[in-house]
Amino acid sequence: MKLETLHALYLKELRDLYNAENQIVKALPKMIEAANSAELRAALSNHLEQTKGHVARLERVFQLHNESPKGETCKGMEGIIDEDKSLLSHDENRGVRDAGIIAGAQKVEHYEMAGYGSVRSWAQQMGHTQAVELLQQTLDEEKQADAKLTQIAQTLNVEAVRRAG
Amino acid sequence: MKLETLHALYLKELRDLYNAENQIVKALPKMIEAANSAELRAALSNHLEQTKGHVARLERVFQLHNESPKGETCKGMEGIIDEDKSLLSHDENRGVRDAGIIAGAQKVEHYEMAGYGSVRSWAQQMGHTQAVELLQQTLDEEKQADAKLTQIAQTLNVEAVRRAG
Repeated sequence: MKLETLHALYLKELRDLYNAENQIVKALPKMIEAANSAELRAALSNHLEQTKGHVARLERVFQLHNESPKGETCKGMEGIIDEDKSLLSHDENRGVRDAGIIAGAQKVEHYEMAGYGSVRSWAQQMGHTQAVELLQQTLDEEKQADAKLTQIAQTLNVEAVRRAG
Repeated sequence: MKLETLHALYLKELRDLYNAENQIVKALPKMIEAANSAELRAALSNHLEQTKGHVARLERVFQLHNESPKGETCKGMEGIIDEDKSLLSHDENRGVRDAGIIAGAQKVEHYEMAGYGSVRSWAQQMGHTQAVELLQQTLDEEKQADAKLTQIAQTLNVEAVRRAG
């Protein structure tokens, strides 16, 4: 495949994100099930609903460009989710497991923040105003989800230390 | 493997980051070679030197805890670098390739920002003051490297659009 234009690179990255979002929709229920803290379960459940919205938003972006969303497998997200799964299979302290689930979920968020940051900037440079708006909304939600997880981590991890100590 | 304590999770994540940093030390020279813009090559070369410093800093953190840095393979970073490699093999417009290299490097930075954010917070909660200082230095450098790439992207991508248009 040749990438002769910024538009081709932009579509490639959008397809990578579309595949990544769909991987997250499949992975989040297992993380929610494994989480101990009610606050963490609620935050992850809320983010699962948001993520379904991100999939739909990307489909609207592809419609704007008369393109199909299929075609890429996001290897970065595959690797991150593989790591998260390996953590869930551990028979660890539940507070510690929650700390690990948060760390794994924050890697997911950060991958997406980088990806959406790029496609949003490229859409801006190419003058795709409607796409910029949709991509910015998702980028904002990823950042908010990350900030919420940082906030929950502050209480959870202290708990994990106490149980261990 | 059981993760009964936050300290065990912290060591596991530090080993993941140590492996990730070493993967980056191997991958960056190919990205530098493939980059067209002199400014981008300079920024990536500077970050290669920083990354070698991050490896050394992590070794000091392991020494503080009398632990070995070896043992984990960072699958998340493997996936991200695989994606970057697939981009480098494309015979694309050089401006577009630079835009893709920046997007790939920003995924690398974001993965590390998430990982260092977690271990820095856990070290704080466990009172590992010296480790916190070392991990915070690296986290700050990753954020600076990401910001520098965003700045370079602003000029590069416009160039790519112009060449394509």
